[in-house]
Amino acid sequence: MEEIKIIEVKRSVFADNDQDAQELRDHLKNEKTCLINIMASPGAGKTSTLLQLAIELEGKLRWAVMEADIDSAVDTEKLIHGGVHSIQIHTGGACHLDADMTKQGLKELDTANLDLVFLENIGNLVCPAAFDTGAVKNMTILSVPEGDDKPLKYPRMYEICQLLVINKVDVLEYFDFDKEKVIEYAKMRNPEIEIIFISAKTGEGIKELADWILKSVDEWNSQ
Amino acid sequence: MEEIKIIEVKRSVFADNDQDAQELRDHLKNEKTCLINIMASPGAGKTSTLLQLAIELEGKLRWAVMEADIDSAVDTEKLIHGGVHSIQIHTGGACHLDADMTKQGLKELDTANLDLVFLENIGNLVCPAAFDTGAVKNMTILSVPEGDDKPLKYPRMYEICQLLVINKVDVLEYFDFDKEKVIEYAKMRNPEIEIIFISAKTGEGIKELADWILKSVDEWNSQ
Repeated sequence: MEEIKIIEVKRSVFADNDQDAQELRDHLKNEKTCLINIMASPGAGKTSTLLQLAIELEGKLRWAVMEADIDSAVDTEKLIHGGVHSIQIHTGGACHLDADMTKQGLKELDTANLDLVFLENIGNLVCPAAFDTGAVKNMTILSVPEGDDKPLKYPRMYEICQLLVINKVDVLEYFDFDKEKVIEYAKMRNPEIEIIFISAKTGEGIKELADWILKSVDEWNSQ
Repeated sequence: MEEIKIIEVKRSVFADNDQDAQELRDHLKNEKTCLINIMASPGAGKTSTLLQLAIELEGKLRWAVMEADIDSAVDTEKLIHGGVHSIQIHTGGACHLDADMTKQGLKELDTANLDLVFLENIGNLVCPAAFDTGAVKNMTILSVPEGDDKPLKYPRMYEICQLLVINKVDVLEYFDFDKEKVIEYAKMRNPEIEIIFISAKTGEGIKELADWILKSVDEWNSQ
């Protein structure tokens, strides 16, 4: 099994984050590598969604995961165990990744030989939404137990994402979660946002999500 | 029904937060008001726990809630509808409350005539843990669907809390959540932390939580 690699990244106080992000995107463009930034609350199912995607994306492209956490390597362990090439980034307590931190992590992956990298951002609906990481696409995962009102409370997250994935639909009947309402609230924040309902437990909706990802990679390479 | 009061609080760039927090605690001590800071991920059940507590604390003390959010007043609406005296704080996008922001909010409540104020902090496991709000006690709520590994990933939150409330135990059977493991991980971060299992849906464990709160208020007044 792949060994767990932990990279301690540091935030540059003087950086112009928007410029760093654009430079990183230009670099990824040259390497024909698509970077997708996944953001969510703690426990919404970022890692388990990636594990399901591993089955669906098998043999379709060359990809890896940069897993960002404040501490521990539990998610990277799970991904490697599931056969996903991944590295662990530690942020030294920071609540989000900026573009330079993302770049520091990407250096540890051979991006020239990858079509796609997922950045699994810190579990937090506030701060990661305020920093462009240099990603090509932003997606957020909202899980059913969290409630359908999250787009009302965390506007920026929904404004900056191209895709909203609603996870844990297998437990819909046990929670007071209104699918129509969550669509209405998310579209209120961002009329362009696409929405896919999945269960990372049962695999429901994962094919649709994988198709969205494959299309994003294609678009990035043909732009 | 009580009208919803929304207070826009601003962060002072020059403040010494630790000093502000201590001054606020001294002030609350003089007023014989206990302040409990509730922190959790988005959707862990902070508001629904407070609504259950309202039933259990009825007639036992005079209390109110300061509800902090980036946007919307949905939780304050729920609390007022449930008969809980509460005000809404908006942080202008900020991911946490500091002591001065807490003080700005408290001014809108008549603390001299309250035994207890709950501060429902921004839904975030990272940033709120880094700022002393001036609270007498810190508690964090972890919900079963988030998973038992959260103390491994968000160390500071568990280090600074006196109480860990584990919510949504009514859905334990639908999730892969190990009660023994979560206790082990939480105690690893903070051997002194107390742990109470509840369901804000069924009311299970709420009596025990209310007793912990009543004891905290008593201790604060007799110190």
